[in-house]
Amino acid sequence: MASKSFYAIISGAGSGTGRAAAVRFAQAYPVVLLARKPESYNAIVDEIKQAGGQAFGITADATDEAAVNAAFETIKKELPGSKLAAAIYNVNGGFARKPFLELKREELDASLDAAPKGFFTFAQKTLPLLLDSVSDSPHPPSLIITGATASIKGSALFGSFAAGKFALRALGQSLAREFGPKGVHVSHAIIDGGIDTPWGKSFVANGGVEDGKISPDAIAETYWHLHTQHRSAFTQEIDIRPYVEKF
Amino acid sequence: MASKSFYAIISGAGSGTGRAAAVRFAQAYPVVLLARKPESYNAIVDEIKQAGGQAFGITADATDEAAVNAAFETIKKELPGSKLAAAIYNVNGGFARKPFLELKREELDASLDAAPKGFFTFAQKTLPLLLDSVSDSPHPPSLIITGATASIKGSALFGSFAAGKFALRALGQSLAREFGPKGVHVSHAIIDGGIDTPWGKSFVANGGVEDGKISPDAIAETYWHLHTQHRSAFTQEIDIRPYVEKF
Amino acid sequence: MASKSFYAIISGAGSGTGRAAAVRFAQAYPVVLLARKPESYNAIVDEIKQAGGQAFGITADATDEAAVNAAFETIKKELPGSKLAAAIYNVNGGFARKPFLELKREELDASLDAAPKGFFTFAQKTLPLLLDSVSDSPHPPSLIITGATASIKGSALFGSFAAGKFALRALGQSLAREFGPKGVHVSHAIIDGGIDTPWGKSFVANGGVEDGKISPDAIAETYWHLHTQHRSAFTQEIDIRPYVEKF
Amino acid sequence: MASKSFYAIISGAGSGTGRAAAVRFAQAYPVVLLARKPESYNAIVDEIKQAGGQAFGITADATDEAAVNAAFETIKKELPGSKLAAAIYNVNGGFARKPFLELKREELDASLDAAPKGFFTFAQKTLPLLLDSVSDSPHPPSLIITGATASIKGSALFGSFAAGKFALRALGQSLAREFGPKGVHVSHAIIDGGIDTPWGKSFVANGGVEDGKISPDAIAETYWHLHTQHRSAFTQEIDIRPYVEKF
Repeated sequence: MASKSFYAIISGAGSGTGRAAAVRFAQAYPVVLLARKPESYNAIVDEIKQAGGQAFGITADATDEAAVNAAFETIKKELPGSKLAAAIYNVNGGFARKPFLELKREELDASLDAAPKGFFTFAQKTLPLLLDSVSDSPHPPSLIITGATASIKGSALFGSFAAGKFALRALGQSLAREFGPKGVHVSHAIIDGGIDTPWGKSFVANGGVEDGKISPDAIAETYWHLHTQHRSAFTQEIDIRPYVEKF
Repeated sequence: MASKSFYAIISGAGSGTGRAAAVRFAQAYPVVLLARKPESYNAIVDEIKQAGGQAFGITADATDEAAVNAAFETIKKELPGSKLAAAIYNVNGGFARKPFLELKREELDASLDAAPKGFFTFAQKTLPLLLDSVSDSPHPPSLIITGATASIKGSALFGSFAAGKFALRALGQSLAREFGPKGVHVSHAIIDGGIDTPWGKSFVANGGVEDGKISPDAIAETYWHLHTQHRSAFTQEIDIRPYVEKF
Repeated sequence: MASKSFYAIISGAGSGTGRAAAVRFAQAYPVVLLARKPESYNAIVDEIKQAGGQAFGITADATDEAAVNAAFETIKKELPGSKLAAAIYNVNGGFARKPFLELKREELDASLDAAPKGFFTFAQKTLPLLLDSVSDSPHPPSLIITGATASIKGSALFGSFAAGKFALRALGQSLAREFGPKGVHVSHAIIDGGIDTPWGKSFVANGGVEDGKISPDAIAETYWHLHTQHRSAFTQEIDIRPYVEKF
Repeated sequence: MASKSFYAIISGAGSGTGRAAAVRFAQAYPVVLLARKPESYNAIVDEIKQAGGQAFGITADATDEAAVNAAFETIKKELPGSKLAAAIYNVNGGFARKPFLELKREELDASLDAAPKGFFTFAQKTLPLLLDSVSDSPHPPSLIITGATASIKGSALFGSFAAGKFALRALGQSLAREFGPKGVHVSHAIIDGGIDTPWGKSFVANGGVEDGKISPDAIAETYWHLHTQHRSAFTQEIDIRPYVEKF
C-alpha cells in the first residue's frame, strides 16, 4: 500500500529512465512528473494509474524558474498536506557531438541550462521540502541525480555536453556534503552506456548483444535502493553500465 | 524459500560486515563462512540456522593458498551439486597507523597478504565456479569486494594499509573488465566510515551522533542489491558512508 | 633574446598568477594581457617593459564575446604577422562561499560565465591561431588553464563555484583529446592552496608558516615548463600546492 | 658546474627513463645508479663521465633489502660527506598481460616486489637522507616515483601489474602527505604511453607516427622540473603522454 502522506517528484519524466523511475517509485508514493510537454508524461500517468498507483503530470521546463515555481504551487493544491520523500533530477539536454570549433555558444548554454542551471532551481525548490521530511519520512528523504559518462570524462567532441554534466556533478557533491549531515540523501548516478528505450531501438550498442543497452527498469531499481539506504550507509556516487560495456 | 542449488561464500566472515552479509545472503542461499578461527563464525552459523537458514563455517586463512584449496574441497562434499551464486571478499588485515619510518616491512607484507594476495587466491578459486553459474543462477553471479577509504586515498601514516587496499581495488577493476562481459558481476564497495559492531562500541565516530557509524546490516543490504542488479546495469564501484561523515 | 614572431596571451592578467605568468612568458615572447580594467595590467606592462620585454594590455571582459573579438582584432594590428605560441586562461570569478539555499541564481551564472563560458569564447578564438602555429612555433603551441581545488571537489558551501570549475575542467579535457593529436598542448593546472599576493597579505594560510601560500612565480615557472614540454610528453593535468597544505 | 656536496640516486637505472634521468640530473649532481646488472648502467656511467659529469653504478636488486642496505654503505664511502638531493624510483618488473585465470601467484608477487615492496625499502633508506638535506639542499629534496597507466586503471588482463602500480601510488600519496610538511617533495609521474628506447624500436605505438612514443629525455626534463619546484608549489601527481595518445 502506497503511503499517501509522502510523494515523489521526477523532473525529466519523458525519458526511459524517467518513466521507469516514476513507475518504480509509484509502488510506494504518489508521483509527480515534470516534463516540457504533456506527451512526455501522459502515457506514464496512465500506466501508473492502471497499476493502481497515483500520479499526475505538470508541464514545465526545468530551466524556466517561473515554470518550476508554478509547478510546486500546483503540487501543493493537488497533494495537500503531502510531504516530499524523493526528488529525481533526470533532465537531459544540451547533447552535442561535434568538433569544438563548430560548436555554437548556444550549444554550451543549452548544456549548462539543462544540467547545472535547471538542477540549481530544482534543488532550491526541493531541498527545503526534503529537509522538512527528515523527521518522519519512511526512508531518508532523497535527491537523486542522473549523470552520464560525460560527468567524469571530457571526451573529444563532447566538450559542451561534458561541461554541463561535470557542473551538475559538482553541485551534487556539494549538496551531499552540506545536506547529508542534515539527513537528506543526495546521490549521483553515472549512467555509463546506452539506454534501452522503445524509441531508441535503432541505436545499436555493444554490437547488438542481448542486454547490451541498460534497462531503464534496472536503473529505477537501483534508484529505489539508493532511496531506501539507511542513513548510516549512504551512497554518494554509483556507476551503472551494461556487463559488456567497455570502460 | 532459499534456493538449495546455489550457495554463497564469504571470506572474512568474522567481522561486522561479514556477519551481516552472511545473514542477509542466507535469506536466499546456503552460506559458507571462511574465517581464521571457528570463534569467528560459530555464532553466525547458529544465528542463521535459528532463523531457518543453512550455513556452515570453514577455518581457513585467506592468505594460505593450501587452506583455501582445502576449503573448496570441503564445500564440494558438504554441498554436492550446489553452484556458487555469490562470493564476498571481506578480509581485513594489515591495518597499521604509524609514521612511515617506524613501519616494518612485515607490516607492509601483512597488508599485501590480506588484500591483493588473499583476494588473488580467492578470486582464482571462485571465478571458475561463478562462470559456471552464469547460465542458470537466479541473479548474475557476483564477486563483491569490501574496500575502504584507504582504497582511494593514501593518507599520511596509512601507507602500508593503503598499499594493500589500492592493490585490491586494481584487481577488482581488472576482473570487472575481464569477467563482466562473461556475465560475472565484480563489484567493489568503498566503506568510508567506522562500522557499528558490538566489539567496537568504545570507538566513537562522528562525535557519537546517532547512526554516525555504519550499520553492517545496511552494508549487507547494499551488497544484496549489487548481487541482484540486472546484467544490463551493473555497478562496479559504490561508496558507503554515514550521513554525517566528512568526505 | 625574445622571439619577435610569436606572442603569448593571458586572459585574467590582473591576478597574482596572471602577473607572474606574463612576466615569465615575456622572457621569451611579447605578451598580451587581457583584463577587465586597465588598472589590472598597467603596472605589469610597465614591469615587463622595464625588464626589456614587450607587452601591452587590452581591456576586455572574458565573458563578453564581442569584447574578446575586438581584442583579437587589436592584436592583429599591434603585432602584425606575429603568431600565437601560448594562451593562458586565468580568469577568476563567481567565487561564493555560502549555504546553498542562500545562493542566488546570479551567483551560479557568474561562476559559469567566468569559467566555462568565458573559456569557451577564449578557446574558440585562440585554438585556430594555435593550430596555425604548430608547424613552426619554438615549442608546441599551448593552451593552459588555471583550475582550483574546486575543479575536482565539490565541497559544502562551494557548489556554485565548483560547478564552474568542474565545467572548465571538462572543456579542457575534451580539448586536450581533440587538439592534442593536432599538436596543440592543452593543459589544466589545479592550484590547491592560497596564493601569495601583495593584496592578499591579510589572508593567513597554513597557520602563517613560511611558504604556506603559493608563490605566483612558482606557478608561472611550472606553466612555462608545461609550455616547453616535448610533444611526445605532454602533461594534461597537474596539481600545485604548498608543501604544508592538507590534501 | 655540478654541486659536489649533493648527489642523486636512481633505482632502476637500466631503462630508457632511468638513463635519461641519470644524464639529466648529472648536469647538477653526481649520480648513483642502481640496477640489477652492471650491463644496465655501465654505458650510462661512461656517457655521463664523457659529458663531464660524475657517476657510478651499484649492482643491487631493489627488492633485496640487504643488497639495498649494502648499496647505501657503498655510497657513504664513495661520496663521503655528500648529501642526498634527489632519489628516483624507476624500477619496472612484474609486467604480465594475460587472462586472470592463467596468472600464477608468482606473477602477482613479482609485481608487488618490484613496486610497493622495492619502493618501501628504497623510501625507508632515502627519506632520512632527504630529510637531512632539507635545510641546505639547492632545491627541495625530492623523491620521484615512476608510475604508469596501470597506476590509475586496472585494465582487463593487467590485474597483477596494476595491483603493484596502484600500491606504489598509494605509498607515494601517503609519503607526500607525511613528508611534504617536513620539506621533502614526493612526486608521482603517470607515464601513459610507450617509451622510445633503442631496444624498443620494434614496438610500434600510435601507428608509428613521429613522436608517438615518449622521449625518455622529455620525461627526465619533467622530473628535473619537479625537483626544482619551489616548496610553496609542489606537484604531487603528473601525467605524461604523447600528443597522439588516446586517453
